[in-house]
Amino acid sequence: MSQFPQRVFIKEEGPREGFQIEGAGVPTARKIELIDALSQTGLKHIQIVSFVNPRLVPGMADAEEVVAGFTPAPGVAYAGLWLNQKGLERAIASQRLDLQGKLTLYASDAFLMKNQNRTPDQQLAAQPDLIRMYQDHGIPVRTGFVTAAFGCNFEGDIPAERVVALVGEMLALAEAQGEKLEVMGLGDTMAWATPDRIQRVVGMVRDAFPDLDLSLHLHDTRGLGLANAYAGLQMGVRHFDAAVGGLGGCPFAAHKGAAGNICTEDFVLMCEEMGIETGIDLERLAECARLAEDILGHPLPGKVKQGGSLAAMRRKLAR
Amino acid sequence: MSQFPQRVFIKEEGPREGFQIEGAGVPTARKIELIDALSQTGLKHIQIVSFVNPRLVPGMADAEEVVAGFTPAPGVAYAGLWLNQKGLERAIASQRLDLQGKLTLYASDAFLMKNQNRTPDQQLAAQPDLIRMYQDHGIPVRTGFVTAAFGCNFEGDIPAERVVALVGEMLALAEAQGEKLEVMGLGDTMAWATPDRIQRVVGMVRDAFPDLDLSLHLHDTRGLGLANAYAGLQMGVRHFDAAVGGLGGCPFAAHKGAAGNICTEDFVLMCEEMGIETGIDLERLAECARLAEDILGHPLPGKVKQGGSLAAMRRKLAR
Repeated sequence: MSQFPQRVFIKEEGPREGFQIEGAGVPTARKIELIDALSQTGLKHIQIVSFVNPRLVPGMADAEEVVAGFTPAPGVAYAGLWLNQKGLERAIASQRLDLQGKLTLYASDAFLMKNQNRTPDQQLAAQPDLIRMYQDHGIPVRTGFVTAAFGCNFEGDIPAERVVALVGEMLALAEAQGEKLEVMGLGDTMAWATPDRIQRVVGMVRDAFPDLDLSLHLHDTRGLGLANAYAGLQMGVRHFDAAVGGLGGCPFAAHKGAAGNICTEDFVLMCEEMGIETGIDLERLAECARLAEDILGHPLPGKVKQGGSLAAMRRKLAR
Repeated sequence: MSQFPQRVFIKEEGPREGFQIEGAGVPTARKIELIDALSQTGLKHIQIVSFVNPRLVPGMADAEEVVAGFTPAPGVAYAGLWLNQKGLERAIASQRLDLQGKLTLYASDAFLMKNQNRTPDQQLAAQPDLIRMYQDHGIPVRTGFVTAAFGCNFEGDIPAERVVALVGEMLALAEAQGEKLEVMGLGDTMAWATPDRIQRVVGMVRDAFPDLDLSLHLHDTRGLGLANAYAGLQMGVRHFDAAVGGLGGCPFAAHKGAAGNICTEDFVLMCEEMGIETGIDLERLAECARLAEDILGHPLPGKVKQGGSLAAMRRKLAR
């Protein structure tokens, strides 16, 4: 039985995802150009930079200049990503971002070790300190995230029960620090999700924690991104991460040319055509995807930017 | 409620779709190389050529040589496409193809006029002659097809009721000529389908004609190809057309770079991971997709050929 939401909320991650992996070649002004264009589409949340080591991620070496340079659009939250205290301090110092605390656990022990060099116990133990760090800076902590919730290139299939247990642990440890998580993200970090796995994991987490809002972070590495998003919509999920043009890609996906997050404009078309509100102007968004291609100088995987929207076709036919 | 089939039957259309739009540059021997590789994957139906005007479609000028050159694999049906009596005669003369008659009606009058220069009445009136032509040659007529069943770039949205009516007309006119159609294809020729439209149209046709097997021909022009296929699977559809690597594209889709049919190997991965049998060796099929890229000299849109299969990842982890 389908329980489609009336409206979805999309976190646009294209600028951060895209420019992060493109190296140092993209001029700061052009990054800002894309961010400002995205802010005119109806998107209410745009992740624009990550505050990471510029030697390791040269494409984000100009994060401060990007943050200083965009033109704030009313009602749009501009977000950043950080991986440690130092990154957070840079984000705070930039003064123009919407800062939100987020807790993260890993459904794959092998990936956690590979990515963070930590055991599950160490990762769990690190969360209270993280919460206190946010609390010290007056930053709300409302979001949790389960990495590799549907499977892992280094561990294989992930039992749904493990994801349910992690969500429970995360809610409990936040509560112990006086914080109440409202949204729980399920990340298909290495593209192991299939529509039926989405339904199973989302269903089990929702049954266990009916008051928690769920969010899906889906990758299109194996072509199932939008089928998985559709399965999420059928389960009533209304929070989705996406990247304009399909920008980005997981550096851990173990192959070059990995497709990135689901493509925002393709997802918006699917939602709007199904009567699910997005609040987004699809034509403007597709224009941003073409702008992103122009900025990067290579094609991006999204389809609607070339295929065109159905709404535009209908308008043309009505003339 | 989902009613997944236990097994799906895939008609591989990649060689015909792909080489048709690539022009005259692909050597005949390399076309045959791809066809022979595909025949070793478990695919049981491969459409390899179209018998059309070589001046209009130079990529198919060597259709006879391609048909003469492949090495038949046991249990594999090799199919061709034709648009008229002359094409059919060439297909018959080639002697090595599995010849099947097919009736076609158009859910869009505007597209019918554009594509065939015919009115709906003229198209309907042409079908009995077509059936008699097949009967004269002893060719079975078991399949019908509705073009533009989900929407049309030249006409807009298509009411599901119209599709139901066309299916009824097609069954009746076949029966009047002593033929019983067993499979009805619904074509999303210009990529207007969305998962909910798939469910509505498939549901209405199935309710009206419960004994008829349905087949989906889906294009990925707007990125919804696999989401639409998943919606079809949920409705119990078990016949799908697909193209290895995502070869092909609709020349009428009104834009360059249109994505083609849904990608066979991405669809196979989705089915197999959901426990729906395909009978296909996914690794060999992904190898064919990479071969197709090598033959054409440009990237194809399919994802699994780069992203890798989950089964291969599991095998690697088990070692």
